[in-house]
Amino acid sequence: MSLDEAGPGSTDDAYPVTPQTRVRRRAQRARYDRATVHAILDEALVCHVGFVVEGEPCVIPTAYARVGETLYLHGSPANRMLRSLAEGLPVCVTVTLLDGIVLARSAFHHSMNYRSVVVFGRAHVVSDEAEKARAMHALVEHVCSGRSPDARPPSEQELAQTLVLALPLAQVSAKIRNGPPLDDEADHALPVWAGVIPLRLAPGAPQGDPLLAAGSAPPVYARRYRRPGGS
Amino acid sequence: MSLDEAGPGSTDDAYPVTPQTRVRRRAQRARYDRATVHAILDEALVCHVGFVVEGEPCVIPTAYARVGETLYLHGSPANRMLRSLAEGLPVCVTVTLLDGIVLARSAFHHSMNYRSVVVFGRAHVVSDEAEKARAMHALVEHVCSGRSPDARPPSEQELAQTLVLALPLAQVSAKIRNGPPLDDEADHALPVWAGVIPLRLAPGAPQGDPLLAAGSAPPVYARRYRRPGGS
Repeated sequence: MSLDEAGPGSTDDAYPVTPQTRVRRRAQRARYDRATVHAILDEALVCHVGFVVEGEPCVIPTAYARVGETLYLHGSPANRMLRSLAEGLPVCVTVTLLDGIVLARSAFHHSMNYRSVVVFGRAHVVSDEAEKARAMHALVEHVCSGRSPDARPPSEQELAQTLVLALPLAQVSAKIRNGPPLDDEADHALPVWAGVIPLRLAPGAPQGDPLLAAGSAPPVYARRYRRPGGS
Repeated sequence: MSLDEAGPGSTDDAYPVTPQTRVRRRAQRARYDRATVHAILDEALVCHVGFVVEGEPCVIPTAYARVGETLYLHGSPANRMLRSLAEGLPVCVTVTLLDGIVLARSAFHHSMNYRSVVVFGRAHVVSDEAEKARAMHALVEHVCSGRSPDARPPSEQELAQTLVLALPLAQVSAKIRNGPPLDDEADHALPVWAGVIPLRLAPGAPQGDPLLAAGSAPPVYARRYRRPGGS
């Protein structure tokens, strides 16, 4: 999209703000720039996929990966959620990173620091073999950067057993809360500690598969596991 | 519900398995017992709330708390999601704890260890003042056990500014994946390290509000923050 084609408030570097993506509550926390959205999507590991079954909402956690402006989901062709989405049903994919507990002086102003992304759209089945291979590579690299060269690549049968869906990043917003508590001024003098307890997803020491040969050492990407952008 | 009233496969200690809650994919990972469901709900901090707006799904992350067999959500009466749910729309609330990255020898068998809960139902507004006060107490204690006695309780105005919704835990299922990778037997001899990178939500050192009086020390529940059941 060129700047000329962009609507008001949107640029090449930002997602357009639409009636569906406009953040209404606490709009000062909204972000629409691609860099912020991409960083959240790349750091988080799990998304929550919302879809409608017989008029009722259903939300399922699942893995995903981003390649450029596309979010990929995958799973068994027997997976009810993926089958529904493959038919082009509207979908909402939400990703949340929890950054801290916000303890205010008042119970009312307790909060959490977080970064979240909400994507609306319709997914389609990836049938192009080259795109499917790229998506499956990205899905492994998303959970563990550096892993792909070591893992046995998917066989033709495994590729056939995997349904990959692509969701374009078009209707997208992010929302971020950070910083200290926001107490009422009248409460500032209360003798109550206030502040933030930071939270992060921390890796532990790798646990080898019991079936491994004795002395098999975990690779560096497992020993020094970290999320992109994460600490 | 007495045992006599319980349907097949359900007991006082478990949620009934219904067409909506029956886990279809990888049913061996399903759990319906209350103890497992409660432990997941009590350990996690954020839920993802799915609802339907003009036929399209919407998934929003938010705080929650469990009291007995009720899940409480809260926020501003101006919050669109809460207003929708207050009308009795069907809702799906999903909670996910991420426990590890599962590195298999084959790309195909890469996975994640997780514990999740999915709750279906309809929420209602909590108008009883005593129940509302209990829910708001639980919402603070859920994010930080031990905090309530220190925080200034909600004023009448703050109570009026808070919409509390109750969602009965009736249509509920949990799903758990744990343990090592499950590679094909033919891959076991591959010279590829396989195993699990454990993940946990780790607290950092409390960061005092810059507006605090000098020398104000964080309380023990902030210095030694941990989730119930968590490490």
